[in-house]
Amino acid sequence: MSIIRLNSFAEGRWFAGQGDGAILASAIDGTPVAEITSKGLEPGAMLAYARRKGGPALRALTFHQRANMLKALAQALNARKEELYALSYLTGATKADSWVDIDGGIGTLFVYASKAKRELPNETFLIDGAVENLSKSGSFLGQHVYVPREGVACQINAFNFPVWGMLEKLGPSLLAGLPVIAKPASATAWLAEKAARIIIESGVLPEGTFQFIAGSTGDLLEHLTSQDSVAFTGSLATSTTLQAHPNILKNAVPFTAERDSLNCSILGPDAAPGSAEFDLFVKEVAKEMCVKAGQKCTAIRRIIVPESRMEAVSAALAKRLAGVTIGDPRLETTRMGPLASLAQRADVRSQIARLAADCEVVSGDPDGRIAGAEDGAYLAPVLLTARNSRSAERPHDTEAFGPVATLLGYADLEDAIGIARKGDGSLAGSLITADTEVARQVIFGAGAFHGRMLVLNAECAAESTGHGSPMPHLVHGGPGRAGGGEELGGMRAVKHQMQRVAVQGSPAMLTALTKSYIKGAPEPETGEHPFRIPFDGLEPGMSFHSKERVVTLDDIEHFAHFTGDTFYAHMDEEAVKGHPFFPGRVAHGYLLLSFAAGLFVEPARGPVLANYGLDNLRFLKPVSPGEAIRVRLTVKSKSPRNEAYGEVRWDVEIMTGTGETAATYELLTMNAYREAA
Amino acid sequence: MSIIRLNSFAEGRWFAGQGDGAILASAIDGTPVAEITSKGLEPGAMLAYARRKGGPALRALTFHQRANMLKALAQALNARKEELYALSYLTGATKADSWVDIDGGIGTLFVYASKAKRELPNETFLIDGAVENLSKSGSFLGQHVYVPREGVACQINAFNFPVWGMLEKLGPSLLAGLPVIAKPASATAWLAEKAARIIIESGVLPEGTFQFIAGSTGDLLEHLTSQDSVAFTGSLATSTTLQAHPNILKNAVPFTAERDSLNCSILGPDAAPGSAEFDLFVKEVAKEMCVKAGQKCTAIRRIIVPESRMEAVSAALAKRLAGVTIGDPRLETTRMGPLASLAQRADVRSQIARLAADCEVVSGDPDGRIAGAEDGAYLAPVLLTARNSRSAERPHDTEAFGPVATLLGYADLEDAIGIARKGDGSLAGSLITADTEVARQVIFGAGAFHGRMLVLNAECAAESTGHGSPMPHLVHGGPGRAGGGEELGGMRAVKHQMQRVAVQGSPAMLTALTKSYIKGAPEPETGEHPFRIPFDGLEPGMSFHSKERVVTLDDIEHFAHFTGDTFYAHMDEEAVKGHPFFPGRVAHGYLLLSFAAGLFVEPARGPVLANYGLDNLRFLKPVSPGEAIRVRLTVKSKSPRNEAYGEVRWDVEIMTGTGETAATYELLTMNAYREAA
Repeated sequence: MSIIRLNSFAEGRWFAGQGDGAILASAIDGTPVAEITSKGLEPGAMLAYARRKGGPALRALTFHQRANMLKALAQALNARKEELYALSYLTGATKADSWVDIDGGIGTLFVYASKAKRELPNETFLIDGAVENLSKSGSFLGQHVYVPREGVACQINAFNFPVWGMLEKLGPSLLAGLPVIAKPASATAWLAEKAARIIIESGVLPEGTFQFIAGSTGDLLEHLTSQDSVAFTGSLATSTTLQAHPNILKNAVPFTAERDSLNCSILGPDAAPGSAEFDLFVKEVAKEMCVKAGQKCTAIRRIIVPESRMEAVSAALAKRLAGVTIGDPRLETTRMGPLASLAQRADVRSQIARLAADCEVVSGDPDGRIAGAEDGAYLAPVLLTARNSRSAERPHDTEAFGPVATLLGYADLEDAIGIARKGDGSLAGSLITADTEVARQVIFGAGAFHGRMLVLNAECAAESTGHGSPMPHLVHGGPGRAGGGEELGGMRAVKHQMQRVAVQGSPAMLTALTKSYIKGAPEPETGEHPFRIPFDGLEPGMSFHSKERVVTLDDIEHFAHFTGDTFYAHMDEEAVKGHPFFPGRVAHGYLLLSFAAGLFVEPARGPVLANYGLDNLRFLKPVSPGEAIRVRLTVKSKSPRNEAYGEVRWDVEIMTGTGETAATYELLTMNAYREAA
Repeated sequence: MSIIRLNSFAEGRWFAGQGDGAILASAIDGTPVAEITSKGLEPGAMLAYARRKGGPALRALTFHQRANMLKALAQALNARKEELYALSYLTGATKADSWVDIDGGIGTLFVYASKAKRELPNETFLIDGAVENLSKSGSFLGQHVYVPREGVACQINAFNFPVWGMLEKLGPSLLAGLPVIAKPASATAWLAEKAARIIIESGVLPEGTFQFIAGSTGDLLEHLTSQDSVAFTGSLATSTTLQAHPNILKNAVPFTAERDSLNCSILGPDAAPGSAEFDLFVKEVAKEMCVKAGQKCTAIRRIIVPESRMEAVSAALAKRLAGVTIGDPRLETTRMGPLASLAQRADVRSQIARLAADCEVVSGDPDGRIAGAEDGAYLAPVLLTARNSRSAERPHDTEAFGPVATLLGYADLEDAIGIARKGDGSLAGSLITADTEVARQVIFGAGAFHGRMLVLNAECAAESTGHGSPMPHLVHGGPGRAGGGEELGGMRAVKHQMQRVAVQGSPAMLTALTKSYIKGAPEPETGEHPFRIPFDGLEPGMSFHSKERVVTLDDIEHFAHFTGDTFYAHMDEEAVKGHPFFPGRVAHGYLLLSFAAGLFVEPARGPVLANYGLDNLRFLKPVSPGEAIRVRLTVKSKSPRNEAYGEVRWDVEIMTGTGETAATYELLTMNAYREAA
């Protein structure tokens, strides 16, 4: 296999770099795979290009259009993933490891595409939270909105998941409207570069929305403005150096880091040897140590078990780890491949040596060799145990980024929580227990130190995604040592990358800006019932005001007997005496809703296809027999669903004859674009 | 008046500092007011004390209990505010300025107290967002929760609002469960120290929850851990120095800054001289220049107006500013007092000199003297105008923190937006226009550069809180130059200070942890209908399963004629043909809701007082005539409201006879603690 000259993709074209590059070697046997250099690249010009071309193009698209783009991107990658697998082996990844990296990365794009279409409006901005009334008579209000930032998302990725790492950052940024410059870690950059080529060749992304740096980022940070951002995954040392860059501090460039993390897994005191949970624990820990040869930011590094179970866990783990087949990742029989590089293995060995100050190796030989694979970066799993679990410090400050973990014993649950907290901030923690009270203590006792915590037991084990798997739905990040950042978490990652602005003004102004009706805004003339107006013609504020209807005692009695709802507050004047809310017998809430519908409905076929739901109903004032009600029905907002129809949200107010508000709610209808034929 | 020796409040006692302190002078006449030093203080011990005493005490309280505490604190300050006014004059503040600072600060606590009781549960943690299903059969789920961080909120405040600045940071932190160490700027620390004394003397706060540093913070930053946080208000230079502290970077200590901001106000092209909006603009700009002698982070520094209106605005502003009475802030006739100190005035003069490179003074004399007040830090308002609005750079990088602003002219709206963005990140911007299209362009064109934007016009002017007033309901902070932080914004500020954790597990486990029922969790045995169980006895998961009821065509017809809801999809088999959702005539959604209530209601008097609302109703499958329905009613969660009753949220599912889900919703009832007598 000839050496691949890795290219950057800058300002719309591939660029090979100038002069000789650094040689990158196969994890399997040390043979050269690729050559990398970014010499001659101009990061400042790349940023300018992204701002000029990519940003405006992306921001012109709605969230749904961007979601469709992500889906198409995922499909393009999916169609060519065999090319990625082939290159992935050379990073040391087994087929199973590649699924996590490649299929996991593609899956993240699919999840973002579908969640965005479900959870975001078909718009270019987001409304955040409720309208805040800032005035006595309601003429002055505030509404938070998220608007796109107008810079570039610079993403610096780690070597361990070249594809997932790039895609999990890329997806949310593109959704947020930010063009991306991605920079992979050099060690495994040939795989990231292939993924970048597939992305570019798919033609899915508008020009300037995705650029790629193979090699050093050069003077990129010098050119960042307040609208740009940096998302970094890697070591604590590199992270702090980047974050301290004067330009990042001066311009308050948003900077998120996902870095070292000494994740723990705790065996609950209830999980005795022989229990389902004990076996789950051993299996989970061993799996986390071996997947990706332990090169996972979320891997279990600290195994926290009851003192009385130390020997049983140690023996069970040692046995399980001894059964792991280590070797060429291309072989189907291989369970664990080599580390990513010889340099990486040397680093892991030096961290094991550091751990040895407080710990002893109980299983695995840090210096052992795999017969027939002397040139590869192989390392068998190494299990250590702390000599004194209470005083040991190294397990809490030393990250051996390979198949390495340390056993620590605890006396009671408080002790276990204390040991967990010593990691000083982790991406992921897990607890294996069937006892909800144990879970309550551990989750609330150690939660402040974690971004994600898994409670594993027999109930969920069959479907659990495991301790080490970040899910697109859930935040990925952790406090302290883990960097204090938050990625993923569904739409949270999109919002993190937009600017929240509090907009103040009159109801009319805010309605016009947010396209969402606020009480007090004018009601545009329609000339007809808005239920007769097709989707396209509806505008926030268009209203229907019903005539009155008196709610009689007969109506209440009749409704009660018809529905079976003979609650005493509707039926029994005597029983309701002294009631804290009701002056006497009152109408059923559902009777009011039903009469309201009768008052505003347009019976004949028209654009309204169905009432599909109702939100935020509050009964504010009881209606007594003999009182009249009337209804105001106003278009609040609308969102296209497909070519044929869209969702309309109506602001509804039921008023009494004297003008008091009896109930408010939001009615949801599905409305056709055109009058039904 | 004798000189006040300012004290710190550390580890539960007042501490005067060792040796001579720096002398702080009155803004009015330069006479010494106070002496300040923190020599001998041990910030590390203060942090340890807060973590040992204050943190656990606060975290044992629920949000509602903490809210009550804030209210009591606000009341205690309110009762002694005359003491604060007296000291406030010496900082240069007029009575009106003191209202902003003192009453504004107290008001912020009141708003937080009442919002927290309304918007947060009576719990010690928060549920964030929806349950995320992570599995095929629903046995493995994720739920985000916010838990209290277990550190100390260190708050470094600015000199301009000694009371508001301290309280707007204090309130949200205490609500979040964080003990606070507050450090005021020295220049006006005597006022902050008095407020701190009132806080301590009120006895409202648990021991260790509030400490106060008069003077330098010493080696405070050296002792911060990942669980602590720093919130800073002040200059860009100090902010970047603090944030670059190795300990802050290494431990990823959350750091928020609110710093320099060159806020702009834009006059819309529609607002011609003589219009209501033109007059509003002139009034608002002049007010912002003079309130607090322009020493406001949110004050208008850049006045952006149509080129054709430059002269008219300039003349109107000059006239208005000339009418401002400057003098001793204790006099009722005074509109504007001195700057906070002579040093502050010297700084403002040097910034005006810097602005002069690109601008000319059109009104006010930077070196002028106020007759009879030569010893005070007086400075008359200074209005500048850019020589060339397109090329001028100084107005966009120079903050003269006093009654100083610069006029810039724009050719068209795009030009105006471009000039606004040159500020590179502001706390607040405003636009004066009556034109919603102008507003749309400016808000979405410049929004990414702002934390807050006001659209002011005749509709809201009477009730507007103004360009420069941060509101507790709305975020205060801005990108870039403004620091990239977010304070206030209602409960957003509370959540920012908690740790978000994604918890994964089975439905039963997550229900137990979050106290909120998730479908699939077990249903505890009750032996009776949960509507008969008083509030205290209810537990998430307790359920009632109704018998079936067949919905007949007669029922549908009857309901239609009774309510008036004769929508064709219920009434006309012919008209409904080809409908995208309905197979034929179907039951009204409200009929299903009403029958469901009839199926689960307990008619006789009992703990259920009222149905007060309904959330998230979705009709998932239409019910045809002749189909049966039945209902599952399950306690989802509950929240005490007062001594007599609390709110119960029920998870309700309407199923068809064949077990398909026809509708789901959450029912809200008010339930008594005890069976009604």
